[in-house]
Amino acid sequence: MAGTDSSREDLAAAAGPAIVLVEPQLGENIGACARAMLNCGLTDLRLVRPRDGWPNPKAEAMASGATAVLERARVYDTTAEACADLSYVLATTARTRDMKKPALTPRAAAGELRARIGSGQGTGVLFGPERAGLVNEDVTLADAVLSVPLNPAFSSLNLAQAVLLIGYEWYQAGDATPASALMDESSPPATVATREFFLARLEALLEEAGFFYPEHIGPTMKRNLRTLFTRAGMSDQEVQTLHGVLRALSEGPRRRTRTD
Amino acid sequence: MAGTDSSREDLAAAAGPAIVLVEPQLGENIGACARAMLNCGLTDLRLVRPRDGWPNPKAEAMASGATAVLERARVYDTTAEACADLSYVLATTARTRDMKKPALTPRAAAGELRARIGSGQGTGVLFGPERAGLVNEDVTLADAVLSVPLNPAFSSLNLAQAVLLIGYEWYQAGDATPASALMDESSPPATVATREFFLARLEALLEEAGFFYPEHIGPTMKRNLRTLFTRAGMSDQEVQTLHGVLRALSEGPRRRTRTD
Repeated sequence: MAGTDSSREDLAAAAGPAIVLVEPQLGENIGACARAMLNCGLTDLRLVRPRDGWPNPKAEAMASGATAVLERARVYDTTAEACADLSYVLATTARTRDMKKPALTPRAAAGELRARIGSGQGTGVLFGPERAGLVNEDVTLADAVLSVPLNPAFSSLNLAQAVLLIGYEWYQAGDATPASALMDESSPPATVATREFFLARLEALLEEAGFFYPEHIGPTMKRNLRTLFTRAGMSDQEVQTLHGVLRALSEGPRRRTRTD
Repeated sequence: MAGTDSSREDLAAAAGPAIVLVEPQLGENIGACARAMLNCGLTDLRLVRPRDGWPNPKAEAMASGATAVLERARVYDTTAEACADLSYVLATTARTRDMKKPALTPRAAAGELRARIGSGQGTGVLFGPERAGLVNEDVTLADAVLSVPLNPAFSSLNLAQAVLLIGYEWYQAGDATPASALMDESSPPATVATREFFLARLEALLEEAGFFYPEHIGPTMKRNLRTLFTRAGMSDQEVQTLHGVLRALSEGPRRRTRTD
């Protein structure tokens, strides 16, 4: 399972936790959940007693193209039946219950799910109905609970947003995107020699123009200029552009001075 | 700025990046963004040329109580004006642009934003209009771009979901919730002595009942049972419950045998 590549090529084969919606009320929310799932490469949607029956045309309208997830969705009478083939189940819950059960953050849960799926276990995440959340009986069935740390004064999420955040962490845990990179790598970074040649020319022109005055501040100003241009991580092409800038600025006014 | 506590007590004072929506179209989406922001403790909403004017009653209907964010929202004519007081600006973008600019994941961006806000800098995140995304001119204005790694075959997010994922990472970067904990800490874990007393009693009763047969498997079965009960991380109260279970199971049938 190699993250992005497998999910690009064959979503059906991409193993991930089942998303189990218990007694979802609005078809629109089921559709929005399907979209959020597919955003995160998840395709195994299970519905326990959806209030308005199944299939539900309102779900399709909100799925924004994630119809493959809806078509593959399965409907069950009980949460236990929906989880029968799973051996590690997480219950999402906003509030603390009076149960001695492990409570995970979405990030920790993503690591745990990846590890268990990697060793061949079926896994799933339970989400309760829109307003009430999961009943205690369903939470008891789960191996651990899962809560999203959010602003305690305003923490309520809609169903699809909760699915998105859990799915997002699942996806990140298997994704290899570098935390920081340059967007356009087409023009390679300039070598030190190229940079030095530019900086020396800049300094010579400024020297000629009387920029480094009084003389004792020269070394500090040169160091500051070098620090600025080095920090910018210039490409070859950008150094060429700056040579053009130097030419324009240094020759332009002179020519004007001559013709004036 | 101490994460959860400060956001619980005084949201207005909680420093966080400004969320700058450039030419948002639907009021509903602005409202959903305000809700997602407040979920993550963000309150500085800035709108650049909102299509349907401002204020917009449809925004309030979708904000699910995050009206304080909407009331505090400010409207600008240009992106540059909306960012005038900021010194570090990120542009969210789904596609790669032909620009030599740093590209960050939401998680890396959250760390960068926290560091800069910690040193007193104003920061913001730009989001483009619903369908088209940011124009290049706005991306150029930003210090770096920000993309959410998602299923490349299905990566489109709605505006509020994009705000939620960025805000979520921002919140997590300052949140101290333990990755894994026990939900109910009211009953403390049992000591080794308490556990050993129970396990010895269990073994004695099973020994008496002829459970460890043939004799050579005894040590292995005892080890397996001990492993199982130790892994469960029992509390004092749970050990007491199990003593009751032993009593019921071992005495119940005997009594019945006598009366039969």
